[in-house]
Amino acid sequence: MRPLCFYSDFGYADDFAGTCRAVIARVAPLVRVIDVTHGIKQRDVLGGALVLRNTLPYMPSRAVHLAVVDPGVGGERRAIVLRSADDRLFVGPDNGLLTPAAEAAGGVVEALQLTACELWLAPLSRTFHGRDVFAPVAARLAAGLSLAAVGEALDPACLMRLALPAPRRQPDGVIATVVQIDRFGNAALNLQGGELPAAGLIGDIELLVGGAPHPARVAGTYGGVPTGGLVVLTDSYGQAAVAVNDGSAADLLGLIVGTEVRLRRLGGEAPEP
Amino acid sequence: MRPLCFYSDFGYADDFAGTCRAVIARVAPLVRVIDVTHGIKQRDVLGGALVLRNTLPYMPSRAVHLAVVDPGVGGERRAIVLRSADDRLFVGPDNGLLTPAAEAAGGVVEALQLTACELWLAPLSRTFHGRDVFAPVAARLAAGLSLAAVGEALDPACLMRLALPAPRRQPDGVIATVVQIDRFGNAALNLQGGELPAAGLIGDIELLVGGAPHPARVAGTYGGVPTGGLVVLTDSYGQAAVAVNDGSAADLLGLIVGTEVRLRRLGGEAPEP
Amino acid sequence: MRPLCFYSDFGYADDFAGTCRAVIARVAPLVRVIDVTHGIKQRDVLGGALVLRNTLPYMPSRAVHLAVVDPGVGGERRAIVLRSADDRLFVGPDNGLLTPAAEAAGGVVEALQLTACELWLAPLSRTFHGRDVFAPVAARLAAGLSLAAVGEALDPACLMRLALPAPRRQPDGVIATVVQIDRFGNAALNLQGGELPAAGLIGDIELLVGGAPHPARVAGTYGGVPTGGLVVLTDSYGQAAVAVNDGSAADLLGLIVGTEVRLRRLGGEAPEP
Repeated sequence: MRPLCFYSDFGYADDFAGTCRAVIARVAPLVRVIDVTHGIKQRDVLGGALVLRNTLPYMPSRAVHLAVVDPGVGGERRAIVLRSADDRLFVGPDNGLLTPAAEAAGGVVEALQLTACELWLAPLSRTFHGRDVFAPVAARLAAGLSLAAVGEALDPACLMRLALPAPRRQPDGVIATVVQIDRFGNAALNLQGGELPAAGLIGDIELLVGGAPHPARVAGTYGGVPTGGLVVLTDSYGQAAVAVNDGSAADLLGLIVGTEVRLRRLGGEAPEP
Repeated sequence: MRPLCFYSDFGYADDFAGTCRAVIARVAPLVRVIDVTHGIKQRDVLGGALVLRNTLPYMPSRAVHLAVVDPGVGGERRAIVLRSADDRLFVGPDNGLLTPAAEAAGGVVEALQLTACELWLAPLSRTFHGRDVFAPVAARLAAGLSLAAVGEALDPACLMRLALPAPRRQPDGVIATVVQIDRFGNAALNLQGGELPAAGLIGDIELLVGGAPHPARVAGTYGGVPTGGLVVLTDSYGQAAVAVNDGSAADLLGLIVGTEVRLRRLGGEAPEP
Repeated sequence: MRPLCFYSDFGYADDFAGTCRAVIARVAPLVRVIDVTHGIKQRDVLGGALVLRNTLPYMPSRAVHLAVVDPGVGGERRAIVLRSADDRLFVGPDNGLLTPAAEAAGGVVEALQLTACELWLAPLSRTFHGRDVFAPVAARLAAGLSLAAVGEALDPACLMRLALPAPRRQPDGVIATVVQIDRFGNAALNLQGGELPAAGLIGDIELLVGGAPHPARVAGTYGGVPTGGLVVLTDSYGQAAVAVNDGSAADLLGLIVGTEVRLRRLGGEAPEP
């Protein structure tokens, strides 16, 4: 028996996540389900992929990870399961959602396309494979069904992969992109916190958003700047993030996912050695 | 022991659903609770009734369905439990919330008014019977208490019933009403997907909202139209729904629950035979 | 084994609460977790303290109460556990969040600072002690670890305490402050419902918000006034609250947490004896 960790963009206004939980409970009544989040932005495959990857170290080992952000449902995208080197299973659509996590878990050692339709709900809807395909298959895998029983082997090299945006080093710092914004208005960048010092970004710096400069400070915690001040810190998943002490960086700077933020050293272009 | 499926309009900002879960855990620690949704719109009895009815086929058999959308709390509306022909129990207010689901489950074979107040929490609040009446009674029923112990028999013919809006056939199509809007902006209509062909609504059609015409297509899935295009499909609960591929139909057309949408065939008024 | 009741301002858009649940499941797989709410307003320590205190009578006895509203994370605020006279444990930051509940539970009989860092996750982040400190310690306490193992004794007199706003009696009524607003737009005041008659507030009264008078009625339930009318009632936690029958008092009167509301008797200043 494996625990089942469940992630989706289903939100909380509708029954979607709850109905999937009911399906899981019927198929595999003894499996433990952990709802990691259903608050991924609608159709945000990249955002979902980052949540799945970032939270992985905190999840139980040998879990089945059921992840559904599936704008292509009913079309030609494949339904898949991946097994990672550390024996985690990832069930969801083949749209890039699962691969960053599976790679962080040691890489994909086995991939299958879900084709054993006798494991699915019938009749099969064309718009809700989370309920009709992914949840029942994930539940059966969590209850001990062998991987080979759910479909046909797939070459891992053929899996869809996301183009993760990369930061761009500048003579006086780095240009990064906002990849996630949390409830507190903290904006995570496509930059590891550990890369800040290498780019000379230490202590007081400047943030440029849409050309406008804002004073900020690289610090360890929100309280490293006065209330209302801008701080760049290493967030709890290791990412560099822009935050405001006791406030919302997203609101203050008008940040959304995809916004470019230039982090610039003060006084001269030479990076610290 | 029966599983307990829990639905409400309590939302997630407050403790209401969590406090009810705590009450259930105290009364019946071994009962399995499935939170189907607490995101029903505030006081939207019809919306709640549809969620309860639509999700029923996915719920465990013999469940206790605890449903609370209760704008009349503290007034004269009765607190009830219904037993359906397939031996499901429905606990909640007698305001029409429970009847469509109970009828879909084979019809009401037994109805009782909750009057055994020794099963309720004391002191009894006048504004939160979800916590004080419905949750403890549902928990006891799930734990095995006999139906007769919770109150007095009621004539099912006396139950409150909702006036579900009906679609109106036109020479060139149908006028339907939006009954639910989900997180993705998909708008479900008071029309089964299977009724579309009978109304001659196949392939390219026109949607009229407030007089303004919009081109749309009846298709099987979101991807049946280009990105941003309007599609009318059969949603995952069998209802006809208006959607936008990779977008929000509610935003695009300004739809809210109650909006009338006219679905019109192109080219001539004669329905397909 | 103790049940674990979990409260936070983590919201539902992010993985924060789910990741803490995963940490708890790894540390103490058999502990029962009740998510009371994660919808406390961001950084609203007072709002969280009221939720924790108000819901306490409905929670299982001998529970571990894990509460995280922690704007000072990573700074100098202490991490603590309190034991109340009725043998409940409260785990969270020492910022006043825990003390009103612990006092309602008979008072603090033991307080410790969490210092046994071998019980925490490593590496320790500087911005998410809910996940790295509070969740694993609470899980271990729920699983039976002795209080003495988590840290060092603290003088309860040194605990941070919140300044709870007090209502001000007037010759013709009372001036109260909105302390919570729920999903339905009901506004709870810093006044117990039982104090209304003592202030002569019975039947028809007047509410003044920002100088503007509004007719209202003290009644037992929403239906005590016509649809759309203002009612002052005792809410389900015993607090006096301003509500609208079938509507939102917050929207109607523009109330937010902190708004002062003057409740005035009609006709003369002499209080009822």
